[in-house]
Amino acid sequence: MSKKGPLISGAPLPLAAMSSSSAKNEVNKTVHPFSRAQLEGLMTKRFFYIQAFEIYGGVAGLYDYGPMGAALQANIISAWRNHFILEEEMLELDTTIMTPYEVLKTSGHVDKFADWMCKDSKNGEIFRADHLVEGVLEARLKGDEQARAGGSAPKADVPAEKTKKKKVKAEAVKLDDAVKAEYENVLAQIDNYGGPELGQLIKKYDIRAPESGNEVSEPIEFNLMFGTNIGPTGALKGYLRPETAQGHFVNFSRLLDFNSGRVPFASAHIGKSFRNEISPRAGLLRVREFTMAEIEHFVDPLDKKHIRFDEVKDVKLSFLPKDVQQAGQTTLVEKTVGEAVSSGMVDNETLGYFLARINLYLLKIGIDPSRLRFRQHMANEMAHYASDCWDAEIQTSYGWIECVGCADRSAYDLTVHAKKTKRDLTVQKLHKEPKIYEKWVPEIERKALGPKFKKDAKAVEEAILALDQEQLASLASQLKNGPAKVPETDFEVSSPELLKIELKTIKEMVREFTPNVIEPSFGLGRIFYALLEHSFWSRAEDKDRGVLSFAPLVAPIKVLVVPISSNEKLSPLVRDVAARLRRNGIAARVDDSSATIGKRYSRNDELGTPFACTLDFASVSHGTMTLRERDTTKQLIGKIDDVIAVIKGLCEATSSWEEAEQKLEKYSGEQAA
Amino acid sequence: MSKKGPLISGAPLPLAAMSSSSAKNEVNKTVHPFSRAQLEGLMTKRFFYIQAFEIYGGVAGLYDYGPMGAALQANIISAWRNHFILEEEMLELDTTIMTPYEVLKTSGHVDKFADWMCKDSKNGEIFRADHLVEGVLEARLKGDEQARAGGSAPKADVPAEKTKKKKVKAEAVKLDDAVKAEYENVLAQIDNYGGPELGQLIKKYDIRAPESGNEVSEPIEFNLMFGTNIGPTGALKGYLRPETAQGHFVNFSRLLDFNSGRVPFASAHIGKSFRNEISPRAGLLRVREFTMAEIEHFVDPLDKKHIRFDEVKDVKLSFLPKDVQQAGQTTLVEKTVGEAVSSGMVDNETLGYFLARINLYLLKIGIDPSRLRFRQHMANEMAHYASDCWDAEIQTSYGWIECVGCADRSAYDLTVHAKKTKRDLTVQKLHKEPKIYEKWVPEIERKALGPKFKKDAKAVEEAILALDQEQLASLASQLKNGPAKVPETDFEVSSPELLKIELKTIKEMVREFTPNVIEPSFGLGRIFYALLEHSFWSRAEDKDRGVLSFAPLVAPIKVLVVPISSNEKLSPLVRDVAARLRRNGIAARVDDSSATIGKRYSRNDELGTPFACTLDFASVSHGTMTLRERDTTKQLIGKIDDVIAVIKGLCEATSSWEEAEQKLEKYSGEQAA
Repeated sequence: MSKKGPLISGAPLPLAAMSSSSAKNEVNKTVHPFSRAQLEGLMTKRFFYIQAFEIYGGVAGLYDYGPMGAALQANIISAWRNHFILEEEMLELDTTIMTPYEVLKTSGHVDKFADWMCKDSKNGEIFRADHLVEGVLEARLKGDEQARAGGSAPKADVPAEKTKKKKVKAEAVKLDDAVKAEYENVLAQIDNYGGPELGQLIKKYDIRAPESGNEVSEPIEFNLMFGTNIGPTGALKGYLRPETAQGHFVNFSRLLDFNSGRVPFASAHIGKSFRNEISPRAGLLRVREFTMAEIEHFVDPLDKKHIRFDEVKDVKLSFLPKDVQQAGQTTLVEKTVGEAVSSGMVDNETLGYFLARINLYLLKIGIDPSRLRFRQHMANEMAHYASDCWDAEIQTSYGWIECVGCADRSAYDLTVHAKKTKRDLTVQKLHKEPKIYEKWVPEIERKALGPKFKKDAKAVEEAILALDQEQLASLASQLKNGPAKVPETDFEVSSPELLKIELKTIKEMVREFTPNVIEPSFGLGRIFYALLEHSFWSRAEDKDRGVLSFAPLVAPIKVLVVPISSNEKLSPLVRDVAARLRRNGIAARVDDSSATIGKRYSRNDELGTPFACTLDFASVSHGTMTLRERDTTKQLIGKIDDVIAVIKGLCEATSSWEEAEQKLEKYSGEQAA
Repeated sequence: MSKKGPLISGAPLPLAAMSSSSAKNEVNKTVHPFSRAQLEGLMTKRFFYIQAFEIYGGVAGLYDYGPMGAALQANIISAWRNHFILEEEMLELDTTIMTPYEVLKTSGHVDKFADWMCKDSKNGEIFRADHLVEGVLEARLKGDEQARAGGSAPKADVPAEKTKKKKVKAEAVKLDDAVKAEYENVLAQIDNYGGPELGQLIKKYDIRAPESGNEVSEPIEFNLMFGTNIGPTGALKGYLRPETAQGHFVNFSRLLDFNSGRVPFASAHIGKSFRNEISPRAGLLRVREFTMAEIEHFVDPLDKKHIRFDEVKDVKLSFLPKDVQQAGQTTLVEKTVGEAVSSGMVDNETLGYFLARINLYLLKIGIDPSRLRFRQHMANEMAHYASDCWDAEIQTSYGWIECVGCADRSAYDLTVHAKKTKRDLTVQKLHKEPKIYEKWVPEIERKALGPKFKKDAKAVEEAILALDQEQLASLASQLKNGPAKVPETDFEVSSPELLKIELKTIKEMVREFTPNVIEPSFGLGRIFYALLEHSFWSRAEDKDRGVLSFAPLVAPIKVLVVPISSNEKLSPLVRDVAARLRRNGIAARVDDSSATIGKRYSRNDELGTPFACTLDFASVSHGTMTLRERDTTKQLIGKIDDVIAVIKGLCEATSSWEEAEQKLEKYSGEQAA
């Protein structure tokens, strides 16, 4: 995933919760507008996740996942592993988080993986430079708005979610129209400024530390990697990896060997990475420790076709290509992946294949397709070595969020690691027909070269071996007329005593190349959060009754087992039903707390559990139990074994609720509100 | 997992590979003695795992898992999650690796999580003090052995696996019998020495740096946690967690709330932890970054019964209790868990329950039961707060290895965190009958206290509130006779103006307590390695043909799909069969490389793939394929759908190979050697 890509593009929209893909048609989930505060309240109350080390006051940018969050995350990961690794026979890796300095120096992270920060000149408080400019200018625009409204509007702060802790007070001061336009222009491009430009903006607009009013320093670079020392001497510096990608690249030879020396193949890695953000904000969307899943698909640079492209070519995606963005538009282009590749909008089949597969995965776990788009990077956003890059962006209350990056990284990483370690990281591919061509080949007489040049002999040899074809041809012709200087040196050689250069016919059997890499990189925490927003709604009759409409595939618990009362006669049966569900591979949880059945159902809805089985005394005497569907609250009843079979079908998506209604009786017993 | 527990207890045995639990009876797997070098060679060749950053020269104590290792590990973890978390409705957590200083200061890790190291006095080389003493004394004993053999034996080095890099040369010098006995005694207790004792041994036996021959420094403590800074200021110091346990404890209130305020319940966490070992050795057994799985079972200290104990009470385990060890013996005691608890050998039902469940898990994934024992910690090994502790130890070529620790940590952790953060980390439990008792209760007149003591008022109040019942009773009686000093202070108070102390009748409805914690802690990397040793053997006819007999539950790949030749007519069918297997939830991998079928089967055996399906032209014309069983190399043949159904049954352990032989035909076509 690119570091520099904008986290949030486009303004946040006051979205109503839209129907998630798992919604039953008959339930209207859009009666109440989406409330982020309500969702966050539920997350804390039901311990999906909370700020880490809460009892110690918390640490910014670190989050702990509780039972529901951990299970949801585990299911998202399991679906990912099945969809990508198993389905596509990818080579899974689990490489270390701890990474020595040399590796990240080579990859460019030691020098370039940084953000710009400013210091309050008096109290030393630190700000991320772009956030500071953004916060102050937004506050001034807000103040302008108030002033234009005649000062009658109450003083408003810039929303906390945009600036986190550092709320910037908006003063009702009217701006010149020209200044206002300038500010708006700066904010629109805030992600494109480097340190020096941010420094100029700070001077030009007299931007100061919001609370103290002090001037701030020139922006300086802050490397975002956590550093440490490996071993007891302090001599081996290490970092926590900022991405898993380097772990694939340093193991490339082993992977290639495992794949019998052939490309294409893909490696995949699911694991934690770390970025020491200057000022983490936006909840789970920008954190210091996060779980990511990365695929590195190694491919012949001359052949980026994909053997399974036909299977996805008719998948329709919503594209936001770079030319649309350059025209200042956000209109989506709906096209099949096949059309997108054949028209050249998407660079090659392999890239197109992964865009389609990413789309299928996100829909499978429950992302709303109407809030998913694929945005192409503009030329100035991409790393210099990348040839094309598309982000899967998901719309949330924070705006459109980059959740998956899908870049063609070309041969950059393997090339730099090969150069640094002097290891061969190339692939050899047999030509179908041997390739025959002529080539100037130097032959050095080492036995003569040594005595003649002594300590310089090695330098002379290296200079000769570094010559290109043109230089060799020219030198060969000079040598016909007597001794000549080796180009770019002062050493003179003669032929044939020291050097022979001949035009030879080469019959090349194999082609040697450094593979290109197509990299789909998933921020699982961001997908997790987007899924929460897309799944959350409130009951029409009571906006405080929240529901998370998770699909059974990802729901933390599939079935709640509820005894109607805490009577001890029910407990053996309750335990037995839970055990039988688990034996069928269905995650079940008993709620035998003393809360009313209605409260237990509500809790169940908040946990996103799709089904509930209720046991009462009829269960003991007649062997029946009820089955409740979360979204509709409809209930059916049947023999315990039949109900379990129906649930199994529903969870494995081999049968539908409509079929369940055929197999079981409608239940109209008293239903708790 | 305890840090101080010996990694290796008992001498390494030259073990013959014994039959693993998944072995078919008809195959003799013990013809060739176990060779660690051969297993390690296979691990590298087939990229199960290798030292991390190999192309950069490698980093000690860090390992990368390749495709087979990562898949084996994922399956071990998945089996763990099903066996423990889902089966027992545990509350899963995923907490951060990054941990602030305060938390680990409170838990005791900042002060105590350390090993002793010595420095070469001249070149600065660093040694772990116990390893240094051990290596040098072992070398001297080896030299003595050679000298006693008349110097005829070749000079031998101490095996590299015991000391890793730092091989200590053994010189053939005969020792006095008394000295020899002393050395042996020291080595037997090497894990029990602290820094000062190690320093004395170094002086007494003139132990020097092995290569340089220089003197070494006094042992100094080296904290084993990796330190770093969180955020840009450097003001917030952090560590990478050395265990996941603290993440459970700091979230205890949230967990308790999730469980409706009731104990017992268990939380569980699977994730990476870090220890900056001074000199990592013994391959995967002592590393700097490792995956662990920890359960914290919170329980009423007055009621450590377990509701599901009956389900495991007849499970028979091999115990090595502390009294046997104190007598210098290693004879195992075979007992059921029920007997072990009722006799008091195992402290309580919950601890016994987990020992049985750990045993069942290890057997399920394929650990050889004859090389598994439960060793009780001796009093001097246990943390001071622990009340009982048992390690599941697995025998490998390195000796008996601690793979799971199962300790009763009492209320230690919750108590220290509650004290530090002033948060309530207790449980309230309703008494069945209200408890009625009398109690001295102080009532402070704050309005009078303030004016009288001014700035000392708070100290006076705190001193009074800190008094115990005895002190209150005594003070109450003194106050009857006029003003009296508050015990342990110089402040004098009078009654009733400043303070009233009365004996009141208390009707207590709830009992408040800090729960105890039973902690099963799994080193998954060690289990992974032990499983490799227990699964590895060589074909009787050729000791170079290694086989890994993984059970289908954990095998990285369940089925290899092999086309008999690379003829293109076979490929659509090959892809179709692989896709159908995957749709049935069976991890399948195609090997359509150009190697002979025999070589592909051999590779398959080395990867531990239990089944292979071979497709030939009869498959295209008649729709049949063969099924090969890895251990016996027996082959059957049948219709493709029938073979897939048989494999599904075998992988889900719902049917046996004998049943497969009923359903399919024997195949006697040419079988590759």
